[in-house]
Amino acid sequence: MDRDKQSRQVMSGVSDAHDGMKSVPRKKFKKPANSQFDLDELARGVESGSRLHLGKAITLLESTNPEHKQRGQQLLNVLLPKTGNSIRIGITGVPGAGKSTFIETFGTMLTELGHRVAVLAIDPSSSRTGGSILGDKTRMEELARNPQAFIRPSPTAGTLGGVHKKTRETMLLCEAAGYDVILVETVGVGQSETLVRGMVDMFLLLVLTGAGDELQGMKKGILELADAMIVHKADRDNLPLAKKTVREYKQMLHFLQPATDGWTTRPLAVSSVEGSGVREVWDMVQEFEQLVKESGYWDTRRQEQTQDWFHSMITDELLGCFYGDAQRKQQVKKLEQRILSDELTVSQAVAQLFE
Amino acid sequence: MDRDKQSRQVMSGVSDAHDGMKSVPRKKFKKPANSQFDLDELARGVESGSRLHLGKAITLLESTNPEHKQRGQQLLNVLLPKTGNSIRIGITGVPGAGKSTFIETFGTMLTELGHRVAVLAIDPSSSRTGGSILGDKTRMEELARNPQAFIRPSPTAGTLGGVHKKTRETMLLCEAAGYDVILVETVGVGQSETLVRGMVDMFLLLVLTGAGDELQGMKKGILELADAMIVHKADRDNLPLAKKTVREYKQMLHFLQPATDGWTTRPLAVSSVEGSGVREVWDMVQEFEQLVKESGYWDTRRQEQTQDWFHSMITDELLGCFYGDAQRKQQVKKLEQRILSDELTVSQAVAQLFE
Repeated sequence: MDRDKQSRQVMSGVSDAHDGMKSVPRKKFKKPANSQFDLDELARGVESGSRLHLGKAITLLESTNPEHKQRGQQLLNVLLPKTGNSIRIGITGVPGAGKSTFIETFGTMLTELGHRVAVLAIDPSSSRTGGSILGDKTRMEELARNPQAFIRPSPTAGTLGGVHKKTRETMLLCEAAGYDVILVETVGVGQSETLVRGMVDMFLLLVLTGAGDELQGMKKGILELADAMIVHKADRDNLPLAKKTVREYKQMLHFLQPATDGWTTRPLAVSSVEGSGVREVWDMVQEFEQLVKESGYWDTRRQEQTQDWFHSMITDELLGCFYGDAQRKQQVKKLEQRILSDELTVSQAVAQLFE
Repeated sequence: MDRDKQSRQVMSGVSDAHDGMKSVPRKKFKKPANSQFDLDELARGVESGSRLHLGKAITLLESTNPEHKQRGQQLLNVLLPKTGNSIRIGITGVPGAGKSTFIETFGTMLTELGHRVAVLAIDPSSSRTGGSILGDKTRMEELARNPQAFIRPSPTAGTLGGVHKKTRETMLLCEAAGYDVILVETVGVGQSETLVRGMVDMFLLLVLTGAGDELQGMKKGILELADAMIVHKADRDNLPLAKKTVREYKQMLHFLQPATDGWTTRPLAVSSVEGSGVREVWDMVQEFEQLVKESGYWDTRRQEQTQDWFHSMITDELLGCFYGDAQRKQQVKKLEQRILSDELTVSQAVAQLFE
């Protein structure tokens, strides 16, 4: 990629991530009238690594306009053979664990090692409240300006399942655009971790010192989703406590099933501020990738993830049709009340619904 | 209940549990022609605590004959106001943990304390292989002969969801028949624990010594379903190791979320053979019941369980209708192949299905 093109992307990349195309000087890019983008051109743009085209393609896929959505799917279809060549890493942790700081430091280091890094976010709060913590523009400033990185905040509309679907498709587009490390960030308090685990190769859990107390606030079973625990903010006065926490996790992990067959879940002390342990995380990721690829589980898991995704979308569709009918929803509500007051058995209620 | 009636039930109880009515002398019981039972009579029989009538009622609910099933539901409907007055306890553990021995000892002790105990089983293997480990007639011989106990093996036909539904309804019938302790047993290796957790008030996990190694073979997240770990076979030479295992669990449980709000999950050493610790299990169960009832979570959980049951049956019904169509199933299979070979996006495949 030539320098000029890169620096244009530096400029456009930031706005891509946060504002779509608005702040990009129009004259520099060919934009057909009436938002009618030529799919081939868009596909070529994505493949060439243009962040502008990538951003536009993602916007198409996320659109609620049926025509745009359909063209987004056609585009993704064209690009499918170019997808899959990345390592997909999920990153979660309670608010305050320092996910943004870690991703900023980790991502920047990766670009220095020659990688292209895409950061996607699934933020369950955004779909409920309309406000997105992960979409905060002041986060990851350095990485956002980095020409080898692409940051896309969480889609802010739709159900968790819908957000999940969009993130999966965005991930595929990023791969087609040549990003070889995809970081999918989520807040470790809801149901989104299970969904993210279902779309990544490796899953990192960011924790703080004082493991036992902290985990009380986390989701049940989340430890068993993780391939590694990053004991974060292991700096200055906190270092001895962080090392103790690493030992505690090591002991506890002995009791739990590993998230990935053949891989032993590992706790690591990391300071993003001082930069210590960050390189070790990447070494571990590479070790993981090699081991899991050699065992064949890498491909197996990806295939299973795709199948699960397909079937969960079918289920979502069926449930959406069923509960989407306002009258039916009302009927379910009434039957539920009758069940709870012992007027009707559950089987009878279901039979009435499906008469 | 008079002595004669009890001793008749002792005789019939065993066969109820294993053979339905076959071995019961016909002349002693009124049985209308053509299996047309009078619902009122059956309801009165169940309410009076007759194990024969209870067994017959369960058989109606489990029947695949639509007419029988419907009458079973009518019967359950009549009895609904009499249900709910029991403590429902789930018991799981890997094969070899000694579940039958524990239930035999624990159940017998409960009957001596004046309780009436029903033992139900959910055996995922039975629905797949046709052979049921939990239906083994030689298990729990003493408890099977006990007039204050009722043992019902797992329904042997249908999907796990179907078996789960039948067990829930059987549980309600047992409550209407005056059983005040319901033990729901399952093998801790599959998906059934989550289903059982969704129908009981308290969940016990039977484990052996050497916790770490053993748990490797158990289902992920199962620890966080349990309200207590029974470290079993804590007898003779094994006792010191059992006590060590209790300490290890105590340490580890500090890191995990409790299964029940306000209750601290507890490890206990128990020997069913020597009888040590068995009484302590019951003391703990009573302590749990009092605490959770006082906090109000008892009722909340039961309501939520019933609602979840209703909605999961709706989902099962929708999925059953959808995948039940052979042509549709074939189409899904083909689309899945096309997705895996990157010919089609998941969204496109779903769109084709729901055109």
